[in-house]
Amino acid sequence: MVEFKTNYQSLIENKDWKTLKFALNEFDSIQIAQIIEDISEDEEIIVFRLLSRNQAKEVFQILSHSKQEQIIEGLALNLKMLSNLLNDIEPDDRTAFFEELPGKVTQRLIQHLSPDEREITLQLLGYPEDSIGRLMTPEYVAVKPQDSVEHAFEHIRRYGRDSETLNVIYVVDNDWKLVDDIRIKEVILASPHQRIDDLMDYRFTALDVMDDQEVAIKKFKDYDRVALPVVNGEGVLLGIVTFDDIMDVIEEETTEDFHKFGSFQGAIANPLKEKALGLYKNRIVWLVALVFMNVFSGAAISNFEAVIQSMVSLVFFLPLLIDSGGNAGAQSATLMIRSLAVGDVKITDWYKLIGKEIIVSFLLGVTMAIGVAAVASFRAPEIVIVVSITMVLTVMNGSLIGLLLPFIFTKLKLDPATASAPLITSIADICGVLIYFSIASWIFGI
Amino acid sequence: MVEFKTNYQSLIENKDWKTLKFALNEFDSIQIAQIIEDISEDEEIIVFRLLSRNQAKEVFQILSHSKQEQIIEGLALNLKMLSNLLNDIEPDDRTAFFEELPGKVTQRLIQHLSPDEREITLQLLGYPEDSIGRLMTPEYVAVKPQDSVEHAFEHIRRYGRDSETLNVIYVVDNDWKLVDDIRIKEVILASPHQRIDDLMDYRFTALDVMDDQEVAIKKFKDYDRVALPVVNGEGVLLGIVTFDDIMDVIEEETTEDFHKFGSFQGAIANPLKEKALGLYKNRIVWLVALVFMNVFSGAAISNFEAVIQSMVSLVFFLPLLIDSGGNAGAQSATLMIRSLAVGDVKITDWYKLIGKEIIVSFLLGVTMAIGVAAVASFRAPEIVIVVSITMVLTVMNGSLIGLLLPFIFTKLKLDPATASAPLITSIADICGVLIYFSIASWIFGI
Repeated sequence: MVEFKTNYQSLIENKDWKTLKFALNEFDSIQIAQIIEDISEDEEIIVFRLLSRNQAKEVFQILSHSKQEQIIEGLALNLKMLSNLLNDIEPDDRTAFFEELPGKVTQRLIQHLSPDEREITLQLLGYPEDSIGRLMTPEYVAVKPQDSVEHAFEHIRRYGRDSETLNVIYVVDNDWKLVDDIRIKEVILASPHQRIDDLMDYRFTALDVMDDQEVAIKKFKDYDRVALPVVNGEGVLLGIVTFDDIMDVIEEETTEDFHKFGSFQGAIANPLKEKALGLYKNRIVWLVALVFMNVFSGAAISNFEAVIQSMVSLVFFLPLLIDSGGNAGAQSATLMIRSLAVGDVKITDWYKLIGKEIIVSFLLGVTMAIGVAAVASFRAPEIVIVVSITMVLTVMNGSLIGLLLPFIFTKLKLDPATASAPLITSIADICGVLIYFSIASWIFGI
Repeated sequence: MVEFKTNYQSLIENKDWKTLKFALNEFDSIQIAQIIEDISEDEEIIVFRLLSRNQAKEVFQILSHSKQEQIIEGLALNLKMLSNLLNDIEPDDRTAFFEELPGKVTQRLIQHLSPDEREITLQLLGYPEDSIGRLMTPEYVAVKPQDSVEHAFEHIRRYGRDSETLNVIYVVDNDWKLVDDIRIKEVILASPHQRIDDLMDYRFTALDVMDDQEVAIKKFKDYDRVALPVVNGEGVLLGIVTFDDIMDVIEEETTEDFHKFGSFQGAIANPLKEKALGLYKNRIVWLVALVFMNVFSGAAISNFEAVIQSMVSLVFFLPLLIDSGGNAGAQSATLMIRSLAVGDVKITDWYKLIGKEIIVSFLLGVTMAIGVAAVASFRAPEIVIVVSITMVLTVMNGSLIGLLLPFIFTKLKLDPATASAPLITSIADICGVLIYFSIASWIFGI
């Protein structure tokens, strides 16, 4: 890999475009895309222009969104290539590219599309964001139930070239309503004289064009399909979604969940490429919100000034106790967020889980109280008692907050991952402070 | 769904097996699997026995591991059905099932396999855990470069029925070394008299049988393939891995990362089904470890007893300041763990990121210091100064810990997600306490 890099880098430095063009033929699209991701903006346009029309299309579809934008800008003076490129890329990849551009830029670029492609694109962009309509491609092959296998093959040979996949063939009736999907394996293994409806079991799973993309993820996982058909409310076949688009959505959704749980505003594509200001903006809102939330724990403590004054050593255990509640809460929130995301747990299951959590968190709290009592054993016995009781209560309190918050957010139509580890820690802290000093002032009678 | 459930439940209650057997034909394998997941252990065996041989195989492959085990146990007296089932399921699914069983049970079950299937299974179980060998199936179709397309189709029709997929056809030379993979689309669209090597571009991506499964995830994402070939060190084609197995691995790995970041010991399959004791065991180790770690922050505070005694109001800001450091640290750790997992960032990139993080965390710290100064403005000006300076330093400190810990864990060959939010909070706390009270005792001259 190092040798190959030095090689093309020296060709770029020496502006030896002829040799580079020749060398690029040796690489596959993924490797060319990696080269383009690594080089500067000026160089990437030159390299991109050296590609054949087909290479250009394939490489473009692999590039990151920011590189794609740079390429499109760089081609502004080469209208022929720009137009070819925009028309060549698959409709679903084009939708994904357009939907992240400012509306004005999209409008301008759509002008470069052929009337057919323009119609397809405007239609796909008309579906709601995060809907299955935005993921689908209208390029598939459909046959009729009464066709013979031989006839179906002729049809596939004639119309299949533009289809994104021939792994699954769709069967529609005369109103273009979907009646079945057949794996290409069945068609190949059938005898040429069989009819398509001999191969059909009339069992298929379709996606609704208006459904959320999360529904598609679930169905792809459950049904192990490489492609799923997309229908409208009347069951008419509109397009297909292929597994590669779903892999991208899974990665995006997972990253978003992970980042939300770590209290980012939104998902960050790549920290190496993100500008410092972008990172700052994405982090500061939650951090400042948490500062103001933590002010409450300070206010809570200030009510117990007399207790602290007379027993300063109580403060030594403060971070330990409030952290323990937060830690237990982070655990139960993690479990709930992920279980809700993969569908293991539904929002109606919270009451089933709460009983179990009370038992588990009580056991956790008692074990941790024994641990902390051992550490604190050289202190006054009253302190050991206060700290131990507080430990059990804060761990149970934190665990239940961590369990319930993801459900509450789901109920409020928010992503459960909004119940971030820091948010749970902060809420658990306020409660922990109140529990700790209340018990202390009660036991010490202050 | 409700109606359909009441329906089969009343059939089970009335022991009306005949009608139930008939009703089960109406459902697809996913639905039958859902029914079996919902009913009791005794009922599930009865229902399972009602299935046809083909249904039984398909349903079994969808069931959760614990249900699969119950089914196999329940079939112990029905050796014929047990043997059929074990021989029918795909080799890759069988490996996945066997690898989670105790070794003794696996040995016993392997006796029920036919000599051919036994050989395949023993071979697959011979590959290291988490290696690609454990995911692959030896059921694919391979052709020779010199074959005509027509001949290739005949070969596919003859040998393709057992192949897990016909979406990709593999081309091997006379030593069974892989020379290319061709999408079925290319073969279908070619003319019957073309030779296979006319369709070949000799560019393919293969997986090494000993490679870690994470390598496979990366390649599937990069190359958008529905199946990838698996070769040994000499390039000989051993099997294929299909995208559905990869989807399962992605889900497992993501869940594991998520749970580790929330400081679980390991991934929990489904909290609804997990027993309370299992949940306790999975959570307690980290929680107790963190308790002992937090003892250090208590010890740190005890050194500053005099400062606290003379200025109790310092304690009011303690949870706020240490939490802020932990929160900023949770953010940067989240970003790094996810970026390392999806490959956006490599371990060698840490020095590039550290400069950016210093700038970003300084800006974050200053903004948060302004926020907290506004809240504390009615306190003595010295307190406001101490709190503000501490805020900037703890946020920077926490952010850098969060950034570096995932890299350090990777370097130590541990999963970066081991740098859990609670671990970072605890480390940031100890530093935060020291920073806060050191600055306070310096400014107040105590």
